[in-house]
Amino acid sequence: MHSPIKLGILGGGQLGRMLLLAAANYPVETYVLELAVDCPASLLCQHFVAGDIRDYDTVYRFGQGLDVITIEIEHVNTAALHALEREGVKVIPSPTVLDTIRDKGLQKAFYDQHDIATSPYILTEKATDLINHLDMLPAAHKLRTGGYDGKGVQIIQNASEAHLAFDKPCVLEQLVAIDKEIAVLVAISQTGDMAVYPPVEMVFDPKYNLVDMLLSPARLTNSQSKLATDMAVNVAQALGSAGLYAVELFLDKTGNLLVNETAPRAHNSGHQTIEGNYCSQYDMQVRILLGLPLGDTAIIAPSLMLNLIGADGQVGVAKYVGIDQALAISGLYVHLYGKTLTAPGRKMGHITIVGKKETDLLAMGRSVKDLIQVLAD
Amino acid sequence: MHSPIKLGILGGGQLGRMLLLAAANYPVETYVLELAVDCPASLLCQHFVAGDIRDYDTVYRFGQGLDVITIEIEHVNTAALHALEREGVKVIPSPTVLDTIRDKGLQKAFYDQHDIATSPYILTEKATDLINHLDMLPAAHKLRTGGYDGKGVQIIQNASEAHLAFDKPCVLEQLVAIDKEIAVLVAISQTGDMAVYPPVEMVFDPKYNLVDMLLSPARLTNSQSKLATDMAVNVAQALGSAGLYAVELFLDKTGNLLVNETAPRAHNSGHQTIEGNYCSQYDMQVRILLGLPLGDTAIIAPSLMLNLIGADGQVGVAKYVGIDQALAISGLYVHLYGKTLTAPGRKMGHITIVGKKETDLLAMGRSVKDLIQVLAD
Repeated sequence: MHSPIKLGILGGGQLGRMLLLAAANYPVETYVLELAVDCPASLLCQHFVAGDIRDYDTVYRFGQGLDVITIEIEHVNTAALHALEREGVKVIPSPTVLDTIRDKGLQKAFYDQHDIATSPYILTEKATDLINHLDMLPAAHKLRTGGYDGKGVQIIQNASEAHLAFDKPCVLEQLVAIDKEIAVLVAISQTGDMAVYPPVEMVFDPKYNLVDMLLSPARLTNSQSKLATDMAVNVAQALGSAGLYAVELFLDKTGNLLVNETAPRAHNSGHQTIEGNYCSQYDMQVRILLGLPLGDTAIIAPSLMLNLIGADGQVGVAKYVGIDQALAISGLYVHLYGKTLTAPGRKMGHITIVGKKETDLLAMGRSVKDLIQVLAD
Repeated sequence: MHSPIKLGILGGGQLGRMLLLAAANYPVETYVLELAVDCPASLLCQHFVAGDIRDYDTVYRFGQGLDVITIEIEHVNTAALHALEREGVKVIPSPTVLDTIRDKGLQKAFYDQHDIATSPYILTEKATDLINHLDMLPAAHKLRTGGYDGKGVQIIQNASEAHLAFDKPCVLEQLVAIDKEIAVLVAISQTGDMAVYPPVEMVFDPKYNLVDMLLSPARLTNSQSKLATDMAVNVAQALGSAGLYAVELFLDKTGNLLVNETAPRAHNSGHQTIEGNYCSQYDMQVRILLGLPLGDTAIIAPSLMLNLIGADGQVGVAKYVGIDQALAISGLYVHLYGKTLTAPGRKMGHITIVGKKETDLLAMGRSVKDLIQVLAD
């Protein structure tokens, strides 16, 4: 392997930060494009470029001269990526995949086209469209583009809540009676090799619509686990590009599995792979980008992940109360994202606990959640 | 825990680099002092200061305004550290420890004073002193200060080799008939808590006098393991300062354990803790520096570490031949240090293999060693 490969990352959040920490082990020269100079990734890359990832010229200029570009958020200028790809820069995942996925309407249509089970939906153009589709309620109204981390999603229970609808192009998705939310990470290499992580199980915080705790592996029957894995593989293969794909699925109360949505990158549901699996999702993404063999997705030990989220009513320089006590727990790992300022619901870091039995993990996770608070100093 | 703590590191080599990767998870602002701007640590710290760690004014100025300072190499200006300590900057390990350890003569005397078994030695001032101590041969002639990574050590087998002696202040140590070389890492927190890693076993490459492969845990009897651990604890406690201590010991062919030398920092013999133990030596060092609880030193799985060393006759921009094939092995991790140039014997990175049986690890280590070569491009 000849060094170094010039790797560009669009976006400078925590996913980019953890990708850079994994990339540090390889012969690679890292470049990050992000508007916010004090973003989580800026101090761990070799070359930081301040600029808007949604701007054609900025992305195009950033990509010229790089060997390979990836993303840590979907909301980037894909037209510039198409141009760079035509000029010989590797873009992983391909801009075509990003075009499909970052528009939730196109993403739903993609599942339909490929016979991948997903919840019933219709598209709406403006808020008043909703009154023609009251039969879909209760439903989730989701902005087709620009939503992130639970933002851009509005639950509409019944007709009396129709005024909550977004007045922008949206997907209206029928709510599913959810038994479990699970996620499957699929890696596809540049040569088409594939590696699949065992399914994980998510618990959402209904308040912030954020993943609250995550358990690896998911508590599924063998057949559920196999079906979820097969569906995730179908999604990743149908997308037709090298990349790392986080496929989120619902197991509904009647036992059906439905694909919810797919992220074409490292994902919040894969943080626990850093300690819990032989090859972390970030290491895997680096391997894909550099054309190295895929890593081993096997679980080393069951693990639990919880996000550290800015507490309600707290805005300002972050302090992390209770971290000290938490760190006395064997097998507990703290990952802070280097964000200076906290705000309610902001993802400031995460905790992973490994090496315990599943029931112990869940109990420990709950007590650690009560122990740690992200407050303003 | 209030953030961020300003942490300074003297030295910018691979130990500093891996310390920074661990520190990235905590609320800390990192500063590195090192002469070489393109050193392994420069791009992963938040503030890089180019300067000589052996210069009083440079170290003193670097340390002012920091909360805590540590080292990743002993050859630093300790007078400046004493001054900073008097002014309230935490220095971990204490400069007194560094004064003792970085002079191999004082270090040997320290073992004697504390009844810690070590090999017989005498001090020499100049090369010709050796003729008065031919009864000590075969012996190792070691520069009292400035040696590193096997440099500054000359084996003198008999009187006919006496001309090889250094013409500087040295320790002349009688050679021990070695059965095994082992190392024990001991962590001491700011409040005096202690955590000890299970002993590891080293195999040296006689050519470069570098650790060649390292096996964790060491193949010792329970009583040998307990005695080695007790001796390492004695050393660390006698040094009387918070810090991370790598105590290297010889098990001689008659079954005696002797302390060889101690490093007051993260150490080459602890690289495998990144994947092989719950708390890595770098994570442990960060915990000590930030006043956090010590981590769990327990082994997750047996592991093997091998250094990636610049091949003979190869000087220039490094390329890593065989890394691709090696990465196809499950449980194998590559850590490159970001050094642009390779040279014969230069430590360019390391490999850790985990999750196999001990005998498999040794066989795999040997085949991986044959597979990978660090050449000039």
